[in-house]
Parts: sequence; C-alpha cells; structure tokens
Amino acid sequence: MALTEKQPPHRVVIVGGGFGGLYAAKALGNAPVRVTLIDKRNFHLFQPLLYQVATGSLSPADIASPLRGILSHHKNTQVLMQEAVDIDPQQQKVIFPHGEVEYDTLVVATGVSHHYFGNDCWQPMAPGLKTVEDALEVRRRILMAFEAAEKEIDPQRRRAWLTFAIVGGGPTGVEMAGAIAELAFNTLKQDFRHIDTTETQILLLEGLDRVLSSYPPELSTEAASSLTKLGVTVRTNTLVTNIEDHAIEVRQGSQVERIASRTIIWAAGVKASAMGEILAKRTGVKLDRVGRAIVAPDLSIPDYPNIFVIGDLAHCADPHGSPLPGIAPVAIQEGQYLAKLIKQRLQGNSLPPFKYKDVGSLAVIGQNAAVVNLGTLKLAGPIAWFIWVFAHIYYLIEFDNKLIVLMQWGWNYFTRKQGARLITGEDSQIQTEISDRQSTKDRSTVEV
Amino acid sequence: MALTEKQPPHRVVIVGGGFGGLYAAKALGNAPVRVTLIDKRNFHLFQPLLYQVATGSLSPADIASPLRGILSHHKNTQVLMQEAVDIDPQQQKVIFPHGEVEYDTLVVATGVSHHYFGNDCWQPMAPGLKTVEDALEVRRRILMAFEAAEKEIDPQRRRAWLTFAIVGGGPTGVEMAGAIAELAFNTLKQDFRHIDTTETQILLLEGLDRVLSSYPPELSTEAASSLTKLGVTVRTNTLVTNIEDHAIEVRQGSQVERIASRTIIWAAGVKASAMGEILAKRTGVKLDRVGRAIVAPDLSIPDYPNIFVIGDLAHCADPHGSPLPGIAPVAIQEGQYLAKLIKQRLQGNSLPPFKYKDVGSLAVIGQNAAVVNLGTLKLAGPIAWFIWVFAHIYYLIEFDNKLIVLMQWGWNYFTRKQGARLITGEDSQIQTEISDRQSTKDRSTVEV
Repeated sequence: MALTEKQPPHRVVIVGGGFGGLYAAKALGNAPVRVTLIDKRNFHLFQPLLYQVATGSLSPADIASPLRGILSHHKNTQVLMQEAVDIDPQQQKVIFPHGEVEYDTLVVATGVSHHYFGNDCWQPMAPGLKTVEDALEVRRRILMAFEAAEKEIDPQRRRAWLTFAIVGGGPTGVEMAGAIAELAFNTLKQDFRHIDTTETQILLLEGLDRVLSSYPPELSTEAASSLTKLGVTVRTNTLVTNIEDHAIEVRQGSQVERIASRTIIWAAGVKASAMGEILAKRTGVKLDRVGRAIVAPDLSIPDYPNIFVIGDLAHCADPHGSPLPGIAPVAIQEGQYLAKLIKQRLQGNSLPPFKYKDVGSLAVIGQNAAVVNLGTLKLAGPIAWFIWVFAHIYYLIEFDNKLIVLMQWGWNYFTRKQGARLITGEDSQIQTEISDRQSTKDRSTVEV
Repeated sequence: MALTEKQPPHRVVIVGGGFGGLYAAKALGNAPVRVTLIDKRNFHLFQPLLYQVATGSLSPADIASPLRGILSHHKNTQVLMQEAVDIDPQQQKVIFPHGEVEYDTLVVATGVSHHYFGNDCWQPMAPGLKTVEDALEVRRRILMAFEAAEKEIDPQRRRAWLTFAIVGGGPTGVEMAGAIAELAFNTLKQDFRHIDTTETQILLLEGLDRVLSSYPPELSTEAASSLTKLGVTVRTNTLVTNIEDHAIEVRQGSQVERIASRTIIWAAGVKASAMGEILAKRTGVKLDRVGRAIVAPDLSIPDYPNIFVIGDLAHCADPHGSPLPGIAPVAIQEGQYLAKLIKQRLQGNSLPPFKYKDVGSLAVIGQNAAVVNLGTLKLAGPIAWFIWVFAHIYYLIEFDNKLIVLMQWGWNYFTRKQGARLITGEDSQIQTEISDRQSTKDRSTVEV
C-alpha cells in the first residue's frame, strides 16, 4: 500500500466548464486524482437562462458563476483559464497556444456553437444565443429597435423596427419569442410616447410542421396556442431562404415572402465545437452529421479508453439508437457517470454502460405558461410553469446567486418590470447605431 | 384661464440623465410643462457604486435603471436617446447629429469625464471609472491580472501582475483600493493553486499630503490607517510622472521610482464634459479651470435666464466662494431647486438663490470601515459603514433594484463572496489577452 500511495496521482484533465465538465470535476473532488479543469472563460454559464439575459430580465452574473469559486474547496483541483487548441493522444497532452498539460485521463466537453446551415454570412444579421456576449448583443439590438422605432416617422420603416423574427421553433426560439412578447406587450407598454409597443410583431419561424418538434405533438399544440395568446405569430413549415440587413426571406410551400425586420435572432441549428474535428483527426473517432463525436457506451472513444467525450459534443445513442438530446440533464448525468467510472477504474473495477435517466423536458413560454414532458405526464399552463421555475432553481443551487435570482424573478413576476434592460457596449458603437438607425428627419423635431 | 390653458405648454429640455437631470425631470412630473430628457444612454447610472461593479460585487443592472422606466408614469415627459452635439441659444434649440429639439427652458447636466492632466496618452494604460463600460474593463483587467499571475513562473513578472496601482486618493481611489484589498485578501484567497493572493500589493498614490483631502484631516488619518490595516500601501505626496504599459513612474520629493505594475487605475482628475465648451462658445458663459460653467446664484447662466447648468458640470459657489463638490447630493438638490424655480416662474414668481443643504460626505473603505463627515459629527469605523450603507440604500430607493442590491450586499457581507467576478468582453480580445499575458513556458506544464 505504501508504494501505491507514493505513486504520482492519476491526472484527469477536463476541457470545458459547462454542465458536463463542471459536474465531472465536482464529482471528482473527493477522489484520489489530480483534476485540471480547462476553460477559456473564467465562469460556468447556466445556459438555459441565457434568453433572460437577452431580454433584460437577468444580468450575466445572475446566471454565471466563477469556476474557481465553485471549485475552490476541492484542493485536488486546479482551474486553468486557457484555450485548448489541440490534443496529442500519443503523448497524452492537451495543447494551448503557449504551453500544454499532460493527462492520464482526458475528458472533452467543449459543447456546440451555432450552425447557419452553410450560410455563415447570415451571422452578423442574425446573431445566436450561446455566450454572455451573444446575449448582451441580442439585448442591445432588441432595445435599440424600440428606441429607433420611437424616433422613426416613416410608418413602413417603423414597422420594420417593430418586427422581430426568430428563426427556429425549438425551446430557445419559443422562450425568446415569449420573452420578447412580454417585453413589448407588458414591460415597455408605458415607456414610449410616439410608438405603441403593442403593435410589435413577433414572428417565430419553424421549418418543420410544429414548434418544439422534439416534444410530444400535444405539447407542441399547447405551446403554439400559448404563444399565439401572448401575441406571437407562429409560422410552421416556413423555411428561411435568405437574410439581409433589414429583411428576412422565407418560403412556405411554393410561396416566397420578404419580411422587413430589423431584428432577427438565430435559434435554429447547432454544430459541434472545433474540438470535435481535432478529436477526429487525432484519434480517428467518427463524427455524426453535425460534428459530434460518436462515443462508446461508456462515453470513451474507440481505441482510446482514456479519452472521453461528454455533453453536447458527444453523440451518445439511447436504447433506440438515436442520440441523446443536447440538454443540461444529459450532460450532468454523463459528467457524474464519468467521475464514478474513473474512480472505479482506479480500483481495478468497471461500470455498466452509461444510461440516461430521463428527467423530462421543459420549455417556458411566458409568465405562467410552460410545457413539461415527464414521459407519462404531460403538462401545460401555470402548473408547468411552476415546475419549470423549481427545476431551474434546483439546478441553480450550485450557484451562489440562487437566492438573488429567485428574488429577481419574484420582483419581475409581481411588477412585470425588467430591470436589466440596459443598452451597453462600446460608446462609439452605440452612437453609430443611434445616428445610423434614425431617419434623416428626427421625430423629436416634429412632436415636441 | 381658458385662454392660458390653451397655450402650448412650456417646453423644458434637460440634457443628461444623471442625478441632476433625472431629479429635475422627476420634480417636474406634475408641472404644467412638457419635459424632454435627453441622454445618449438609455439608463440612469448610480455612479457612487460603480466601483463595486469594477470589483465584481455588483452587476451593471444592479446600479442602473432604464430612464424610460423611471419616468414612464410622467405623462408630460418624454425620453430621447440622443447625443446633444450643439445648442443654438438664439433659436432655442438643442442639436443632434440628425435632428434637433426646441426648448423654452434648457437644463444642461452632462457632468464630467476623466482628466489626465495633459497626458491623454495614459488613458489606455490607466482606465478611469465613469461609465458601465469603464467598470467592466477595469473588472476584466483586475481579474485577468490574477489569472495571468497564476500562470506566470517568473517571480518578478508575477509580482508585476500582482501589483495594483490606483492613482488618486479621493473617495473613488480609496473605495477602489479597499475593494481590491478585500478581493485579494478574502474573496480570492482559496481560488488559486500557484499564487498566494495575499501577496498582492495595492498602492494608493496621492499627490497631496493626505488621502480624502476634501474631508477633515482626522478622517483622512482614519481612512489611511483603515486602508493600511486592510493591506493597502498608502503613499501620499507622491506624484505620477509617467505611465507605461507595464509600469508606473512616481516622484516623491526628489526621489523618482519606477514600479512594475500591470494594472493601473485612474481615479485622479475630472474635467467638464464637452457641453461646457459648447455652452461657452454659444453663450459666453465663463468656465473655471476644469471647464465647469460658472453659474449665477439661481443656477442660470449670465444673459440667458432660461439656460441652467446643474450637477458636476456647474461651478456653483458656496457662501465662502469655493465651488460645491461634484457629488450626488449637490446635483440632486440643484435638480430639485430648478424644478421648483421653473414652476414658480411660470406663475410669475421667483425663488431665493440656490442654497446647498450639506448632508455630509461619506467614503467607504471596506467591510465595516468607512468615514462619515456630518459637519459637527465625524465618524469612522463600523458605525460609519452602516451609515454609508443606509445612505446608499436610501438613494437607491429610486431604483427597482434596491431590494436586490440589499440582498446581494447581505449575501456578499456574510459569505465574503463576490459573484459578479466575470471576465467578459469580445472573445477574441480575451483570447489575445490570454496569449499575450502569459510567459512562453506555461505554468501548467511545470506543476501538473
């Protein structure tokens, strides 16, 4: 025993501090291993609530927590703020722009980013929602659109400013559409003097025949009807064929239509982060259609039993052969399974394959409206909304700020105010926007 | 009476949504006038707490509130998100890049910005603290310095990363120094594995012979001793002679010294915003040494009884002839006086000159440490700190978020955690910083 204990501890390197990576690191906190968690950001982001940052209900710090703080009491764990740019599976190293780190076991959990289906040129006109910066940019665009509309005297141009198009009817698109509706029809209702924000048009564009297509059809129907009640125009079977600076072109059947809109938000496709390609090149692991690494039942990759992929970057098949969805509960369970597996292996044992325990899925539509799919139990309406709230509070328990978020929500709920609707960014940028976005004859001249 | 009522209402245009402008607008909410509040930002910023955003205790939205939201129930008031670039006192107009607005009474309250005493080239190396963006930039630098130190293996370079120099020993400098000390010596103590954050050096550099020189000398002594106890090195009679990328040069008497420091924060001089010069050019109003407009006892400017300057941009003499300090209570009282004056004038009356009712001055040094000057009553220590907390909560009452801020403070107080210590900004910028700021041989190679 004495000899074994003097061996240098097993080194686990985790790339990515999202749900998968963070929960793996947490579960290894009491294990006889040295853990290195690598992330290019210094915080873990609670992505399911990012849309609330984008619509001014929450601040970034409400849904982000410094990785060092979360892991500070795990003395076997270090956090490195680094960008992993390559791996060397033969030498067992992760490579940074300057420097490297050796591993005995490698966990890759770098997630996914946006996918514009081959139209990357659409990105500047239709930003997505993956990072804090994305969310602040979307917030800025939404709020600036109302400011610009307030100044605009041409009715057509004003209508374009008050038209918001959301591409993609998955959970993010549904949540964004609902939140913008609440902003326009409740929060901002009293704030302007020249526009009526209740004239805002919110389009939710979905290519398939229903929103929330990964949910049971009856919940899709419920979601669409709740959205309609909130004032959102839900358009299914509608494909985006082009995005320009001030307009979006859609096709429904054989009908092509050009809709003038100054604020377009991308909530459609995701693709694997760059680490997927790197893994494929270095280890030969197969990638699926969107670039996710196809992992073995124990989440390792073929021929490299000490390299694991978890979270959104992993293509892990469920019992029916389809990949598990890219949601937080899957990533969390994978991270926890993996920590257990590493601990068992160190003791010479093994574990049965990973099995996802379905905790259901949730999407929120607006205040008091959500859909919940718990398998046998399908719910919509206020009760679903409360389940949604408590599920999120439960997972936020990892965060220092859970009480603050709860308070903030309570406050927003009862006052229908949203305090975080600040337009921030570079001064120059804001000023350019203001000049750029207003018509030559300023509204203020006319009516004051 | 009927005739009078049919006259178009008196148009009051207020430029600037800081304390002066906002409180003037609020006090005019029930007056028979049309109010237009112009600001280039869409929010009012509670600047006295900006240093807490810069040190990761609060989020921008905790101390900023949308102007439209604050004024939404004043139906006689409109908010314009615009940048005033000129005024025309003959035509009674405020000019924007595109457009203009007419006034009967004009209130200029555009405040002050940084002043580098003729060394504007120092700005990139030593950012100040006036806007939300300033605060987030300073936060990013402070947190990145610890990240870089963690990776640095050269002891001298590591020391430079762990040396923070604050230029200026006024309230902002004192508050920043105290807050960085708490960050380094408490909040972050457990977070790193290769550096000991308690080795951090925090220098507060003041040109005069004491910090808080506008306070009574005994409070300066108290403040300096509290800072020293917190771990701050207070250097008085110390002039900054040069600021370079990685160092600051200071002179004390005839002794010149170069101190290696990677994080330098400017809390020294202020100068009037550009509107001061514009006013001088267009109306002939005299400016003082730092560019503030010298106003008449009723806050108007000579020859233009319908143009007023209030807040930090105004040089308003106290009974002894020295200008009132640039602090929130002065601006608030000026705004309220002005609203009263406008209302009285509309009824054909006048008001006695503006008289500042001294509510005392406060500066916070750290948890449980502050100094309070209430004229006859001078306090330091925990009681002063509680007075500081409650004074700020009192003024934050205008904000939706007072409860949230109180909760956040309570949380931070008892846990000594600071949840908002996120490094945000452009991804590329962050990555450049990381590569740029680390030594060629990465620490992680050595010790993992």
